[in-house]
Amino acid sequence: MFDWDAVFATRAGRMKASEIRELLKLLERPDILSFAGGIPDPALFPAAEMSAAYASVLSGSQASGALQYSVSEGYRPLREWLAHEMGRIGIACTVDNILITSGSQQVLDYLGKLFLSPADTALVTWPTYLGALQAFNAYEPAYDRLTPMGNRTADSYRERAAKQRERARVKFAYVTADFSNPTGETMSRTAREQLLDLAEELDIPVIEDAAYQALRYDGEPVPPILALDIARKGHINETRTLYSGSFSKTLAPGLRVGFVVAAEPVIRKLVLVKQAADLHSSTINQMAITEVAKTIFDAQVAKIRATYRERRDLLLAALARHMPEAVRWTKPEGGMFIWVTLPAGMSGAALLKASLESEKVAFVPGQAFFADGSGENTLRLSFSCANAAMIEEGMARLGRLIAAQLAQV
Amino acid sequence: MFDWDAVFATRAGRMKASEIRELLKLLERPDILSFAGGIPDPALFPAAEMSAAYASVLSGSQASGALQYSVSEGYRPLREWLAHEMGRIGIACTVDNILITSGSQQVLDYLGKLFLSPADTALVTWPTYLGALQAFNAYEPAYDRLTPMGNRTADSYRERAAKQRERARVKFAYVTADFSNPTGETMSRTAREQLLDLAEELDIPVIEDAAYQALRYDGEPVPPILALDIARKGHINETRTLYSGSFSKTLAPGLRVGFVVAAEPVIRKLVLVKQAADLHSSTINQMAITEVAKTIFDAQVAKIRATYRERRDLLLAALARHMPEAVRWTKPEGGMFIWVTLPAGMSGAALLKASLESEKVAFVPGQAFFADGSGENTLRLSFSCANAAMIEEGMARLGRLIAAQLAQV
Repeated sequence: MFDWDAVFATRAGRMKASEIRELLKLLERPDILSFAGGIPDPALFPAAEMSAAYASVLSGSQASGALQYSVSEGYRPLREWLAHEMGRIGIACTVDNILITSGSQQVLDYLGKLFLSPADTALVTWPTYLGALQAFNAYEPAYDRLTPMGNRTADSYRERAAKQRERARVKFAYVTADFSNPTGETMSRTAREQLLDLAEELDIPVIEDAAYQALRYDGEPVPPILALDIARKGHINETRTLYSGSFSKTLAPGLRVGFVVAAEPVIRKLVLVKQAADLHSSTINQMAITEVAKTIFDAQVAKIRATYRERRDLLLAALARHMPEAVRWTKPEGGMFIWVTLPAGMSGAALLKASLESEKVAFVPGQAFFADGSGENTLRLSFSCANAAMIEEGMARLGRLIAAQLAQV
Repeated sequence: MFDWDAVFATRAGRMKASEIRELLKLLERPDILSFAGGIPDPALFPAAEMSAAYASVLSGSQASGALQYSVSEGYRPLREWLAHEMGRIGIACTVDNILITSGSQQVLDYLGKLFLSPADTALVTWPTYLGALQAFNAYEPAYDRLTPMGNRTADSYRERAAKQRERARVKFAYVTADFSNPTGETMSRTAREQLLDLAEELDIPVIEDAAYQALRYDGEPVPPILALDIARKGHINETRTLYSGSFSKTLAPGLRVGFVVAAEPVIRKLVLVKQAADLHSSTINQMAITEVAKTIFDAQVAKIRATYRERRDLLLAALARHMPEAVRWTKPEGGMFIWVTLPAGMSGAALLKASLESEKVAFVPGQAFFADGSGENTLRLSFSCANAAMIEEGMARLGRLIAAQLAQV
């Protein structure tokens, strides 16, 4: 057999299977109560509207364009709609500030590609979105722990990077500011301003992953980091923040349509990245999603919010009812996830193993979300696809198992 | 303004706008007779069948799956159909030998990512597909000239790579074996076997870009390099050839569906590359293309072949009629392109400038297809979107202009 390992690039050593995705393959067994996935509830997909949109796009004069190659920047009417939507959340911009991508995961890949040379440092929170670590890993960075509340100085980040390797530089800070995956937490306005302060001191870009931003269930919206940056600088083209968005949590992930909003010079460079990497995102999907977004976006988001809000409330109530006192969890104002911290010394991975065996309850152990492999005593619960009965039964079983494990210590 | 250049990775220096794609933006003027694009004729798209496929995929029980996240490997029924099709051209394989991508351009990006560390050498022909150079450039390779007919030894390739940089290695050879973009030429069986010999001596993979393979208009099909490799080794899992395919030239490019076929160990690694880069290709498009492929693939290919064959014949005849004697061109057995060599000293780029001004005829100057920037006196003509009247008129004008320029020398 040909020795493939001998011809792989050095980066291939950091390409590993996602534990979560491998796990999800095992969870299709119908007897498992799964809080592991982070996927939207397919019952909420606007299937009828999508079907009408594809029929419209493929009828008459639009059909040739929908099936043909198109520009790397993305479908202009979709960028126009997005520019208007961005304006509603404080991000004044034009179509030239927007690149359409194949989902927001692709934004992360392209930003890693554009910014990271081997041994450059990426600042991420502990924990952070696992998919971001996977995307960035291909470009062989080092990671440093971002503490958005400002309890480290810019110099300490620089020194840490310099220790990693001569000429190594901090290249960007990555955060999910709203209802983060995995913790469900939201950065306060103060924390966002402090992050911008730090980025200015380090003279680096900020990547704002806004995949869940539309899914707020209560509390007051906090301005996007890019909006705060625009307020500081007066114009988006003067800012350092890259806003990564997605239709996967609002309309549907199967179309793979996401986008990035930022200053024109970096969007122009990202257009070249995209041109070389996959020419452009699916023309027909961009056209269909434009029709659906124009027609039902707000109503669809309202429907999703109402459904997920109820599930979040049910999960929070069930946790309060069934978890032993030593267990802690977040109280998210939106998104899809609740983050559970077990007493020190317990292991999320070991708990999952036991839980799958005796209780048939699944979740994601938290360790994979930490760039340094810490976080052993954490786990992520998703409520997006759960119903009342499985939430009650699932948390009763899980609480019982944790209590039993604690009693053994 | 934020200094973006200061934070870009070193690879960003090699990300440049494609001259061809920039040129194409100028060619939408209706008074230009354009032989520049390399895109399929949209009049041939199976729009009705596509429309029916999307309606089917979005109706009833399939809709949720079509709109949801899916596995990185790709939609299994599409991989099953492809495995069967591959068998018909001598490539015995299973679904585990196939990864679905977002067009074959993405295959090239992923292979660059998987194999190339900075200063590794990629072997390419002079000229080669411009999109391959763009995809590979992001991984900062050196290039060496592949001469498939075996007039260089493996040692000469190794020595040249070693000269580029200490520890630099030759990592793969890339070819478009059938009806190449840009020359239209096809590698003989002997040249394919010699390429495999060279790859075995160098112990490197071969990337076979088969984007145009289905578009043969006459002559006998030559077995794919992967088929010859399987014949040597007995099983696809023992081979070193990666076969990159696409639906863009047969069904429609706007769906962005391509694929790569190779030994299981490298496909497994490419699945990880895809998972980290964009999770998976559009679920709905994979499902729709499966329905269309199963129903009309052979008929659609037959229709395209008949149309393009006629256009190729018209263009060859017009070239013979109108070009001055010193001009040479290829006689492709398929594909979309004819490659023209002007007398030494003439410039394709200068000719284009003059042609757009005085004759309103467009084509692509050949220089961009050469990794070393040579090929000044070459140009590429595409016949895929041309009709009889524009071919006759366009070549009459171009021949006249070339004759006038030659007379001035």
